[in-house]
Amino acid sequence: MADRSLVFPAQEYRDRIARLQTAMAAHGLEALLLTTPADVFYTTGFLTRFWASPARPWFLVVPQTGAPLAVIPSIGAALMGRTWLDDIRTWDAPDPRDDGISLLFDALCECVSAQGRIGLPMRLETHLRMPLEDYETLRAKLAPRQIVDATECVQRVREVKSDAEIAKIRDSCSIAGRAFARVPEFVSAGTPLDAIFRDFQITLLAEGADWVSYVAGGAGAYGYGDVISPAGATPVQRGDVLMLDTGAVKGGYFCDFDRNFAIGKATDTARYAHAALWQATEDTLCALRPGMRACDAHRMLSDALHKQGVAPAGGRLGHGLGLTLTEWPSFTPLDETRLRAGMVLTLEPGCITGADRIMVHEENIVLREHGAELLSPRAPSDLPEIVT
Amino acid sequence: MADRSLVFPAQEYRDRIARLQTAMAAHGLEALLLTTPADVFYTTGFLTRFWASPARPWFLVVPQTGAPLAVIPSIGAALMGRTWLDDIRTWDAPDPRDDGISLLFDALCECVSAQGRIGLPMRLETHLRMPLEDYETLRAKLAPRQIVDATECVQRVREVKSDAEIAKIRDSCSIAGRAFARVPEFVSAGTPLDAIFRDFQITLLAEGADWVSYVAGGAGAYGYGDVISPAGATPVQRGDVLMLDTGAVKGGYFCDFDRNFAIGKATDTARYAHAALWQATEDTLCALRPGMRACDAHRMLSDALHKQGVAPAGGRLGHGLGLTLTEWPSFTPLDETRLRAGMVLTLEPGCITGADRIMVHEENIVLREHGAELLSPRAPSDLPEIVT
Repeated sequence: MADRSLVFPAQEYRDRIARLQTAMAAHGLEALLLTTPADVFYTTGFLTRFWASPARPWFLVVPQTGAPLAVIPSIGAALMGRTWLDDIRTWDAPDPRDDGISLLFDALCECVSAQGRIGLPMRLETHLRMPLEDYETLRAKLAPRQIVDATECVQRVREVKSDAEIAKIRDSCSIAGRAFARVPEFVSAGTPLDAIFRDFQITLLAEGADWVSYVAGGAGAYGYGDVISPAGATPVQRGDVLMLDTGAVKGGYFCDFDRNFAIGKATDTARYAHAALWQATEDTLCALRPGMRACDAHRMLSDALHKQGVAPAGGRLGHGLGLTLTEWPSFTPLDETRLRAGMVLTLEPGCITGADRIMVHEENIVLREHGAELLSPRAPSDLPEIVT
Repeated sequence: MADRSLVFPAQEYRDRIARLQTAMAAHGLEALLLTTPADVFYTTGFLTRFWASPARPWFLVVPQTGAPLAVIPSIGAALMGRTWLDDIRTWDAPDPRDDGISLLFDALCECVSAQGRIGLPMRLETHLRMPLEDYETLRAKLAPRQIVDATECVQRVREVKSDAEIAKIRDSCSIAGRAFARVPEFVSAGTPLDAIFRDFQITLLAEGADWVSYVAGGAGAYGYGDVISPAGATPVQRGDVLMLDTGAVKGGYFCDFDRNFAIGKATDTARYAHAALWQATEDTLCALRPGMRACDAHRMLSDALHKQGVAPAGGRLGHGLGLTLTEWPSFTPLDETRLRAGMVLTLEPGCITGADRIMVHEENIVLREHGAELLSPRAPSDLPEIVT
């Protein structure tokens, strides 16, 4: 077979499928059913922004041995035909009579014995991207075959990135790093926040992003109120601290890190908080090792913030990333996921800077046997000031 | 209560909830459970790009009377607090012990009697954005309360747009129209397709898009192979027809239309196909009326293409849009959805131009009592040529 694969050579996908199949065998699964953009991209190289249309479900079946079967809307046949897959079955979606369910049923029956188990990710940080009623119909038809949870099976494989994947994430981080370096070109006192968001996206594209799936941020003299809001027209003012955060995408892989800037001279509060966040990140960068758990990373970041004399903000203080803006694990006190070499992670300490005010700081790393290796260009330790 | 709502005044959301509650009563539903970005935005005004993170579920409960209850991760509390909602319940997600399910259970129990029915969209063009196992736990806990399908209930309400919504979609269409007009500024023979996609996104942002959720396209002398692929580095050549398609977003609302351009002098095939697609659109623009069904629109477009001497491409020939890139109904032979005044729709005829080659053409309209009103600036009838 000619190498027709997208994004990576076919061998990359064959290796992924082999790792999934090893995990499937360990979990007693005869097939995996995958439905989300990230899982379909991971197994096939099928990369498209057409997922923005919620009209159609897409199905990928990973059997115990051999290559996956794609059961997809015919509008995707040409693109899927350029991946490494040979077995591509299509229907004209959306079809109110049968939106791919009979085709999917047949594909699963070919791979799974009458008493066999089919794995589907069903737990934390997953969802099923197909109509629920169709899923229930499918499950009933498949009986006595069982559909069982496969979250562990998929997450333990996907969370360790290959060198090829790490190179892609490093590319995305470099693009965002260059765009952050250009922020002073389009921000000064009086620039409305929505204009800043727009120009930041333009700069990310100009620096090489294929597209920009995420931009957020905030501004205020003593931090910002939240970190997920779209921008309003309020201008940034002298003395504000401005935070910009982005998930820029290159070759299907995300970065996810933020940067802070003072507009003019920074307030003491903002300067102090930035230094504390930077140092807490530095301490954790030095100490993080494979074998620690996600909750250990949370504790290290949290302890380091306390040591710097600031109060940690609520919520997680880091997470996985790669094929989506955020992936498991989560740096919370509750997540006991073991950290392993090859995981790509964010260190994302946040601290409270006032009533309903926080500041956050974020870097992207890959965990190596010897410790953390930065993928994002390290932020300056002193809060940069935009002279205005 | 002060008017704190985002995007629209609070009355817009109150009107939407009243329409949903009327539909709920007709379907015997004591509550609606909504989980997708579009449904949450529709009912609350909660607009964020943070949905790009699949880590956390978000829940919105619409009771029989009164305002909705939001059951959401605490990271969204500040933003949801600026909407018109007062009842906002939060937890620190992701929580592997209980990711909001107990809170959601309590909220549903407050709204729904012991034998009551809870509606959830489960059919064509829907999905449930939460972990499946959590849903199954919730359903079991709620018994003998039942969770039943509410696709009709939600879709019949959402598909008729208010004047405020139509104005937003018109804004998005205007932005894309201005960006399409500037395509000759950054395209000539020899420009790589990926550079074109990048510059098109930059231009959409420069013309006022808040963000660009979708860009696709293709190029070739006699049409393109598919319409959902990301761009490669292949340069467009003299004699190619280039198609660009976009879902640009302004104030949370999408446009979705495309434009074709010849690079230099168009081939006769491309010129003829473009004229046929344009005329089929024109015929349908003139004839479409409320009361017709989605399948009638398909037939009209299909008949008009045959009359022009070209063969319709497979797949749907138009669809709804607004809060997402595509919404129901679908212009296929199978969709019997009744078209109503206030629906925003694409007319999207495609035709076959060669072996594995097609061309497509798309306009956005709002259906009025008297017929179609264009929201996208009408494409020129003759395929425009980019002098190069």
